Amino acid sequence: MRASQFFISTLKEAPSDAEVASQKLMLRAGLIRKVAAGIYTWMPLGLRCLRKVEGIVREEMNRAGAIELLMPAVQPAELWQESGRWEFYGPELLRFKDRHERDFVIGPTHEEVIGDVARRELRSYRQLPKHFYQIQTKFRDEIRPRFGVMRGREFVMKDGYSFHADYADLQREYDNMHATYTRIFGRLGLEFRAVAADTGSIGGSGSHEFHVIADTGEDTIAYCPDSGYAANVELAEAVAAGGERPAAAAGLAKVHTPGVRTIDELAAFLAIPVETTVKAIVVESTDGVPVLMLLRGDHELNEIKAQNLAGIRSPLTFAAPSAVQAAFGAESGSLGPVGFAGRIVMDRTVARMADFVTGANETDFHLTGVNTGRDFAEPEVADLRNVVEGDPSPDGAGALRICRGIEVGHIFQLRTKYSEALGCRFLDENGREAIMEMGCYGIGVSRILGAAIEQNWDDRGIIWPAAIAPFEVVICPVGWAKSEAVKQRARSIYDALMALGVDVVLDDRGERPGVMFADWELIGVPHRLTIGERGLADGVVEYNARAGGEAVRIPVDEVVEGVQQRIRN
Amino acid sequence: MRASQFFISTLKEAPSDAEVASQKLMLRAGLIRKVAAGIYTWMPLGLRCLRKVEGIVREEMNRAGAIELLMPAVQPAELWQESGRWEFYGPELLRFKDRHERDFVIGPTHEEVIGDVARRELRSYRQLPKHFYQIQTKFRDEIRPRFGVMRGREFVMKDGYSFHADYADLQREYDNMHATYTRIFGRLGLEFRAVAADTGSIGGSGSHEFHVIADTGEDTIAYCPDSGYAANVELAEAVAAGGERPAAAAGLAKVHTPGVRTIDELAAFLAIPVETTVKAIVVESTDGVPVLMLLRGDHELNEIKAQNLAGIRSPLTFAAPSAVQAAFGAESGSLGPVGFAGRIVMDRTVARMADFVTGANETDFHLTGVNTGRDFAEPEVADLRNVVEGDPSPDGAGALRICRGIEVGHIFQLRTKYSEALGCRFLDENGREAIMEMGCYGIGVSRILGAAIEQNWDDRGIIWPAAIAPFEVVICPVGWAKSEAVKQRARSIYDALMALGVDVVLDDRGERPGVMFADWELIGVPHRLTIGERGLADGVVEYNARAGGEAVRIPVDEVVEGVQQRIRN
Repeated sequence: MRASQFFISTLKEAPSDAEVASQKLMLRAGLIRKVAAGIYTWMPLGLRCLRKVEGIVREEMNRAGAIELLMPAVQPAELWQESGRWEFYGPELLRFKDRHERDFVIGPTHEEVIGDVARRELRSYRQLPKHFYQIQTKFRDEIRPRFGVMRGREFVMKDGYSFHADYADLQREYDNMHATYTRIFGRLGLEFRAVAADTGSIGGSGSHEFHVIADTGEDTIAYCPDSGYAANVELAEAVAAGGERPAAAAGLAKVHTPGVRTIDELAAFLAIPVETTVKAIVVESTDGVPVLMLLRGDHELNEIKAQNLAGIRSPLTFAAPSAVQAAFGAESGSLGPVGFAGRIVMDRTVARMADFVTGANETDFHLTGVNTGRDFAEPEVADLRNVVEGDPSPDGAGALRICRGIEVGHIFQLRTKYSEALGCRFLDENGREAIMEMGCYGIGVSRILGAAIEQNWDDRGIIWPAAIAPFEVVICPVGWAKSEAVKQRARSIYDALMALGVDVVLDDRGERPGVMFADWELIGVPHRLTIGERGLADGVVEYNARAGGEAVRIPVDEVVEGVQQRIRN
Repeated sequence: MRASQFFISTLKEAPSDAEVASQKLMLRAGLIRKVAAGIYTWMPLGLRCLRKVEGIVREEMNRAGAIELLMPAVQPAELWQESGRWEFYGPELLRFKDRHERDFVIGPTHEEVIGDVARRELRSYRQLPKHFYQIQTKFRDEIRPRFGVMRGREFVMKDGYSFHADYADLQREYDNMHATYTRIFGRLGLEFRAVAADTGSIGGSGSHEFHVIADTGEDTIAYCPDSGYAANVELAEAVAAGGERPAAAAGLAKVHTPGVRTIDELAAFLAIPVETTVKAIVVESTDGVPVLMLLRGDHELNEIKAQNLAGIRSPLTFAAPSAVQAAFGAESGSLGPVGFAGRIVMDRTVARMADFVTGANETDFHLTGVNTGRDFAEPEVADLRNVVEGDPSPDGAGALRICRGIEVGHIFQLRTKYSEALGCRFLDENGREAIMEMGCYGIGVSRILGAAIEQNWDDRGIIWPAAIAPFEVVICPVGWAKSEAVKQRARSIYDALMALGVDVVLDDRGERPGVMFADWELIGVPHRLTIGERGLADGVVEYNARAGGEAVRIPVDEVVEGVQQRIRN
């Protein structure tokens, strides 16, 4: 591509409503232009990146045996009524009426449409399994679109749906997709993690999210660098560190703690580490009876884990102050297990503690030297908390670390949630009618570009992974308009690289070097060749890698091979 | 591709609501499946065809210097309010409100969005010309969607928009696009014509439609096989056949024609050729005064031509019976020029006639032997009628023929209609602000597939032009499941063709020959190789062209070269 024949339009400043780095840089580099809140035009430069992502996704999906089709954006309400989501789905589902007053939606997802295809086309076990996918434009009416293409309203997704005769085959395809997604994000050049995930509103069971690791990510992920383990922090199992519970060393003592209400105040007042305190949280049982939950002072209750316990009200409901007062004879802030006759659930970490400090069930008093078994009966032990950095990995392979991620892919075992509702039936080997098992597999194609930038940028601009850069190589001729030697050499290198299939752009706009360099650094092309009269006099061309490192002078005759080598690495 | 890894789903019968051949065949061949009225899923087979069309369109647009981008489907109402189309556009424009009650449309076209890009990005003559295009999914809420993908509601278009510093440059690009479209439709393997067209509701001046020639087309086209001339029949200039007007030979005579009201009745009553009669049509002037228009009895008034005459009311308004009676003293059906004192406009063909028959301005009487100039003053002569088969071509190069066509492309010189409304201003070479000239260029990508089928099908199914067939070659092994020799030979030919980049499908489904042949003839793959034990015993493979012709036995060793040769031809 010659830059003069293309469209390069960079901005010095990002629009003031741009919030995050990727959004600012995509706007400044001219990859996208805003049309309305959360709705963008993909400018020529951005479209090149988008198409490269699509290409890799398509290649790997085809390689994995999935079959591409293309479903419509506009979908009739009837299908959503059949699945139940016409009622259930929130206002993110854009509903509208056509000129005949019939109800439609602009599809944020396609379980209903593909289910309709499957129930009409797949009638026999001989036709199963089948995995259909598409790369298609979707719409989700976000209440507050933001972060550019990362939380837009109109966006491009790869969504695939697989249909199976039995659960084992769904699991096989799920593993196949796990491997495929791993290949895809690997080829895209992203640092990512596959994370065990909640299945959310889409329903079903068995799900992994694929996250691009970036400090600006909206999700918090716990992972073990020594093993493959990774989970959304809300779902990660919290394992108690250390070995057995130490023997009791201190005697039980009551201390006056006037005005102390929080754990931090307690630790400060007694001048003890917060890790030696235990906090008490009172929730309701399914019968409305107070249940005492004990966590180490610095740990956070995980409400999902707590509400998933047998006999606990879901969603988790904290006991009212009056109920607390009635059950404990004290205000919250001075509660503890000693003397409490009701149900107690203790976090695994607390179960390993001895000589801890907790409330005395008497307002403005705490107990020190508290020991489980000695001062109160051994209670029920459970995983009640969010993991923290340094926790043992649940797979026993090392210590957990915490990072932030941007979800770019999601695979689900939907099982029969939609196939049942939509009547996706087939005749099995025995001629009996059965419901198909179903999986679904999404990749946020347009979001990937934002995530890739969040992971790779500096103060000069974007640093694209080579696979999704708009161009692999840029040739910057210094003095294009003035020097015939520069022009000729630039053209001949350009022609040679083009002939080899390298995705190269020749900056023949005649701009000054400062403008050229700033533009291409902002745009983030990985490899740059600078051709100038001084260099040519020495028989060299200058090479710069966008990712950093020293400039390299390459002899003119070796430049084509030199660039190819650097692309390969 | 191996058929067992793909998705083939043919139907014996088309759904009963399918109206035209292409729609029936696309449904039967499993190219598309209906989701709602005018809304389809592109099944894997159909998507292959769609992508081939897209690929050719993209290549040629890029070659022509246009730059691809991608605009959103969902567009804010504000832009349509600026252009004036929010009010002007009919109910085909799907309007909706988002969750914040803001107005949006699902774009049926993108002049507004690209205009917004242009006014923000293009500020100097140095940045002009620029031609941006996209291949994108559009929505038009047709009142009665029909003919499958030919008049659907959701459809894929290539739409391009060019911006210029002056009109001469717009004309240059318009010619460039005319040539590009000619290349595109040529490469697609379609018989087509570029037709001078009305600019319709989109406005502007200077426009050609590209029509695929097919008997089932909705448009009627006049063309000259001896020259390039072609025009929509409503727009084609009607030139009078023959030479000068003959001298008057007959005397004027009044004949009693009781009950005769129509031209056909008149010709039958007098036993004369209809071509010797002249019909009289009375329309209103801009002042509401009756104007008499004269056409040869068998010709049809072209209302657009008539209303475009100076002084004629537009839209064309026929005079009321009472006004006719008052002006002519007779009922319509007995009207003529002799004795009429008002304005007369005569079609060019009538101006060449002598001794004709027309109404006598006396109910139930006609005049024979009427001659212009002798029996009434020479009136104004104009082109008033639709052309008919055999008319001289307006370019003087031969006789016109009439055919039917399906519009698949349209190029427009929009001039400043949208750039003015949207404020697409730039600084010209003299530093003065000026409005950009604008062109737009559309191709109905999904419609092309329907049109291609309307042009190429038989009672067995589709006959694809090779460039857009889902596969170029199908290998049908007879006895796949039983014969190892057949299986091996089929695989080795498949591998060899794949290695050469041929788009080949191997039917490894294990179906009976009858089923295989019927499927692939319905699907319309251009080249078929049949591999069976009997042929292999003779050292041959059978070749069939879908377009027809005898089966050919090709020696096994020559089959790869033989197929390649046939693809090239």
